[in-house]
Amino acid sequence: MIIVMKPNSTAAEIGAVIARVQEVGATPHPIYGVERTVVAVVGETRGVDREVFLNLPGVETITTIGAPYKLASRESHPDDTIIRIDNIVIGGPEIVVMAGPCSVESREQVLETAHAVKEAGAQILRGGAFKPRTSPYSFQGLGLKGLEMLAEARERYGLHIITEVMTPEAVPMVAEYADILQLGARNIQNYGLLHAVGRVQRPVLLKRGMMSSMEELLMSAEYIMSGGNYRVMLCERGIRTFEKYTRNTFDLNAVPVLKQLSHLPVIADPSHGTGRWDAVPAMALAAIAAGADGLIIEVHPHPSAAISDGPQSLKPERFAELMPRIKRVAEAVDRTLSTVANRQPVPA
Amino acid sequence: MIIVMKPNSTAAEIGAVIARVQEVGATPHPIYGVERTVVAVVGETRGVDREVFLNLPGVETITTIGAPYKLASRESHPDDTIIRIDNIVIGGPEIVVMAGPCSVESREQVLETAHAVKEAGAQILRGGAFKPRTSPYSFQGLGLKGLEMLAEARERYGLHIITEVMTPEAVPMVAEYADILQLGARNIQNYGLLHAVGRVQRPVLLKRGMMSSMEELLMSAEYIMSGGNYRVMLCERGIRTFEKYTRNTFDLNAVPVLKQLSHLPVIADPSHGTGRWDAVPAMALAAIAAGADGLIIEVHPHPSAAISDGPQSLKPERFAELMPRIKRVAEAVDRTLSTVANRQPVPA
Amino acid sequence: MIIVMKPNSTAAEIGAVIARVQEVGATPHPIYGVERTVVAVVGETRGVDREVFLNLPGVETITTIGAPYKLASRESHPDDTIIRIDNIVIGGPEIVVMAGPCSVESREQVLETAHAVKEAGAQILRGGAFKPRTSPYSFQGLGLKGLEMLAEARERYGLHIITEVMTPEAVPMVAEYADILQLGARNIQNYGLLHAVGRVQRPVLLKRGMMSSMEELLMSAEYIMSGGNYRVMLCERGIRTFEKYTRNTFDLNAVPVLKQLSHLPVIADPSHGTGRWDAVPAMALAAIAAGADGLIIEVHPHPSAAISDGPQSLKPERFAELMPRIKRVAEAVDRTLSTVANRQPVPA
Amino acid sequence: MIIVMKPNSTAAEIGAVIARVQEVGATPHPIYGVERTVVAVVGETRGVDREVFLNLPGVETITTIGAPYKLASRESHPDDTIIRIDNIVIGGPEIVVMAGPCSVESREQVLETAHAVKEAGAQILRGGAFKPRTSPYSFQGLGLKGLEMLAEARERYGLHIITEVMTPEAVPMVAEYADILQLGARNIQNYGLLHAVGRVQRPVLLKRGMMSSMEELLMSAEYIMSGGNYRVMLCERGIRTFEKYTRNTFDLNAVPVLKQLSHLPVIADPSHGTGRWDAVPAMALAAIAAGADGLIIEVHPHPSAAISDGPQSLKPERFAELMPRIKRVAEAVDRTLSTVANRQPVPA
Repeated sequence: MIIVMKPNSTAAEIGAVIARVQEVGATPHPIYGVERTVVAVVGETRGVDREVFLNLPGVETITTIGAPYKLASRESHPDDTIIRIDNIVIGGPEIVVMAGPCSVESREQVLETAHAVKEAGAQILRGGAFKPRTSPYSFQGLGLKGLEMLAEARERYGLHIITEVMTPEAVPMVAEYADILQLGARNIQNYGLLHAVGRVQRPVLLKRGMMSSMEELLMSAEYIMSGGNYRVMLCERGIRTFEKYTRNTFDLNAVPVLKQLSHLPVIADPSHGTGRWDAVPAMALAAIAAGADGLIIEVHPHPSAAISDGPQSLKPERFAELMPRIKRVAEAVDRTLSTVANRQPVPA
Repeated sequence: MIIVMKPNSTAAEIGAVIARVQEVGATPHPIYGVERTVVAVVGETRGVDREVFLNLPGVETITTIGAPYKLASRESHPDDTIIRIDNIVIGGPEIVVMAGPCSVESREQVLETAHAVKEAGAQILRGGAFKPRTSPYSFQGLGLKGLEMLAEARERYGLHIITEVMTPEAVPMVAEYADILQLGARNIQNYGLLHAVGRVQRPVLLKRGMMSSMEELLMSAEYIMSGGNYRVMLCERGIRTFEKYTRNTFDLNAVPVLKQLSHLPVIADPSHGTGRWDAVPAMALAAIAAGADGLIIEVHPHPSAAISDGPQSLKPERFAELMPRIKRVAEAVDRTLSTVANRQPVPA
Repeated sequence: MIIVMKPNSTAAEIGAVIARVQEVGATPHPIYGVERTVVAVVGETRGVDREVFLNLPGVETITTIGAPYKLASRESHPDDTIIRIDNIVIGGPEIVVMAGPCSVESREQVLETAHAVKEAGAQILRGGAFKPRTSPYSFQGLGLKGLEMLAEARERYGLHIITEVMTPEAVPMVAEYADILQLGARNIQNYGLLHAVGRVQRPVLLKRGMMSSMEELLMSAEYIMSGGNYRVMLCERGIRTFEKYTRNTFDLNAVPVLKQLSHLPVIADPSHGTGRWDAVPAMALAAIAAGADGLIIEVHPHPSAAISDGPQSLKPERFAELMPRIKRVAEAVDRTLSTVANRQPVPA
Repeated sequence: MIIVMKPNSTAAEIGAVIARVQEVGATPHPIYGVERTVVAVVGETRGVDREVFLNLPGVETITTIGAPYKLASRESHPDDTIIRIDNIVIGGPEIVVMAGPCSVESREQVLETAHAVKEAGAQILRGGAFKPRTSPYSFQGLGLKGLEMLAEARERYGLHIITEVMTPEAVPMVAEYADILQLGARNIQNYGLLHAVGRVQRPVLLKRGMMSSMEELLMSAEYIMSGGNYRVMLCERGIRTFEKYTRNTFDLNAVPVLKQLSHLPVIADPSHGTGRWDAVPAMALAAIAAGADGLIIEVHPHPSAAISDGPQSLKPERFAELMPRIKRVAEAVDRTLSTVANRQPVPA
């Protein structure tokens, strides 16, 4: 931590800063410049808020050095985290594809989609049973019934399941059905929920909020990990900017940067990242080329009848065309498309 | 709703759109242009998602007309909503000031601040007992003990209390202590929480999220209102932009615009809106001039020792200096600063 | 400047950084921490790009201390800059109001507007003869003819004139007609133009770009001032954000912050800041309460017939209603509304 | 164009709108709904500003249909534009790579870099002789001398040259030396400059502004094309958002979207798009996978000594490693890396 004093700060003010540094157990190194004095703070200050110093008289700014997260950082954990779900391996050389509808709408819809994405080579079925919706008047999901439909599709087609959990209370129930718990973009700083998923032993896909910096995404991962659940995947799904032609601005820079800052796997969501089905294939390929460890893609058998996210859903036949293209780009960057054998049903 | 067809859309595609409009119980008005066909939809379509049409073949874009919220809209409720809390009236000609520390840190701190803000003329004491923090290693609040300290300060100084609630489970407990429930910016789309506060009969201060559009803020108010709790105040507290010199960009445009779009009272938070105590007075005055119905301001007896938000907290003496300036500006825009007599303690 | 080394930086890398600091004539102060080494740089480094150090091996980040601008900074020039244009004084206790149409459209329109804004108490007439337009097919301004119409209005009604200049070549011509040169938001980093207006002796109103940080605005002022023209006014006119209900997000935080960072006068433009005439009055008052030294407001006799910016233009009668309200708020913050006697025509 | 009336608009107001539509030569189609009336406008309205209607009494909003640009749109020009520069073909199946330093700093630096990028397979040498810099105290470029150095490198190594032009006056001089004129992000709405490059017959690389929507980028292309110069390449180079870990947010969504909206070639700039050399390779590959027609990459022989943009420059050896990776990804998306024979010098 570097504490920069104002140009006209007094010796007494500087002395007070030095004393405060010592109080928190660190070592102050004052440097007296021509215009300003700077106090460098040596020692562990990760648990010390900047604010302990920021409002002392005479302080101009504070610069923290090093990341505020520890468990999630590559600095403290240089090797890649590999997440195994039965025989699926996420975070290694293989690319994993998760696909399925935005919302679980009916048993037929789920089974039809599951069949199609399985045939095309996906290994994990996505589908929302609990839906965060901007309007209270929109469809809010089928709840437990939706989970049961997903479970049936899993058994029948030998897929794994990822589905969203929205409230702390629902975590145990959703964890009973899902192989991966999804935390949505709107819940990136829902700390009650982060704590709750930190206490179960299910892998978590943590979606970056539309307003989250990469550092905040990593801090939210840190919440989950500090609760004891280390199997976290980071998911880039687009951020909110002034550009409105696409639903979000897909920040693929986050892929190489998060891989550098953290050891956690990075999954990309080109469906939300673009909001337009006709841009999904190009951006799915781009995400793989950028180094993503997997993709999560919305597929719906009848997008024009979809209750939610129809405009960004691929039809099964387009998804089937996309998979071999993903395979080619994966191989061009020395990865492979995962093709492990079908999963065995997990006992409920 | 206006459905714009692509230039090369076929008669069959247009026919399918027309049929779909009829299916949802509305009346289609196709207009055949030189380059494009447009289908205007007449009838109530508030409950109909754009997506029902957006992914039909041949559809280019959809424009919705009118607001997607109803209970919160001025169109359906032309008169201002007035929220009464004992003898305090929010949303009328009087300006109400809420003040106090970001976090409740100790009994002494709360009592000292309560005394100071009361003396200066504030009527509502703010203070967080449950704190949403970016880092799992930061102070998370005193919880129930903090609520008890706030209640003690309320009794002793005849103030009302506003405090944040973060999880659905905590709503009943916080509602027992607080006169106003605060929903924080990070929870603007925490739908479980919105539902929970919609079911209690306590006024709610709903803070705009750092990446929420005004429409989304109103949709979140609609969630609460659709649950039966109509006493919602909207709070502008700054949005996230590229400008980093201030903590947030204080979007005071939201004050006149929200007053136009909605009948709900609008409160401004210059502390979070700026993040710098030295800009708080100017922006508090600006908010009143823009038409805000009240202010929520962070005041801490020793900002340099504050556990959170010290840099944006006013010292009690600066707050005391600010209050008469607020009064002058309020009067210059034909409002008054509320000076109703002390509240009577509410039975727990 | 503070140079933070990577955790695993070598002694040789640190040595190279120290040597480079000495090469640029500054004094290095290395501080050896547990995880990282930091090199504080003492001495004048305003002319030294961060990049001189940023790409040296082993360097993680660089923090610059102090502002990169000098002539525009309050640190180097503590007293407020007062700009006098005949008997009008900008930057002192008086609030100055500039008003008029977005574009000069015809002689009648200019004269009618000039008459109206003069009657209402404005002292400076705005109007664009050269118009930056997003589309090449939109009206681009009347050019020299427009300048002549402005000059006629000036003579007849005893107003001063502010008008935009868009290209370096046009600076001498526009400076011959205008009392104040306006630089538009799109030209904030048009360095050829900044240099050109830096070489004339006409006051300049420099509009913040829609994506400019406050620091960049001050750096652009520095460009003009470093050319020898010190009479620069900073203008907040809204920035581009995700919020689309208003044309721009009017960043009134910039008013107190710019007044703190700089000695230059700050003018606010609520017309562009909101883009909606019905929000202009509220935000004009807010800007004054926030501490602005003046306002620039679009007024058009027939907004519905305006060639540009009609939706954000006030009708003369609304502008006339607004002026006494501005006066009241100005007085509530210990300012006055300028009412100096009519100007005498300046010899061309 | 669709004109939406306010809920309480009167018959007279609707009549006035209908009359105005007829005045501009289009056909009005009023649709009378339950709550609102809508007037659909049929006929060519590209030259008609929304503002002609927007401020008529009773009008709530206007929706324009179809793109405001014509020459740049794929709708009016379905086939891809192919730009030929001698034997280099941009916009066809081949990927073209432009590489070189941010600034031309010395003859040695240019020749060394030119040699290296030529060896690695680049065909076009980039280098700035005129530099837009945020600070007036930063290096502003070598000007004409820089152009001469670029020309020498071109002759010696058989490369083509792209270099930035900043002012209208400099266009003829720069066009004499450069094979491609680059328009920088800060000049995206410098209309004088857009007009000037529209009048020469040199291909133009038009960089998206950090605050430009895709539509604005296309409107700026339209400016150039409406002047008679149809050889425009669009360049995505990152936009400004709240995320500060990277210099810009590289909006690769723009690649497939611009290819859909327009027939012009799209080039990607991963150096500015990321601002970090260690993220450049990943994002260069991602851009190709997304469908870009070429790349522009900063390469500097000694990035740590670079006068500008060192942190985002690749060393020649890293660039040489990257080129075969680009080739592999290009082939995985059915493109090839251009390897045409050396150019012949163009007569000055």
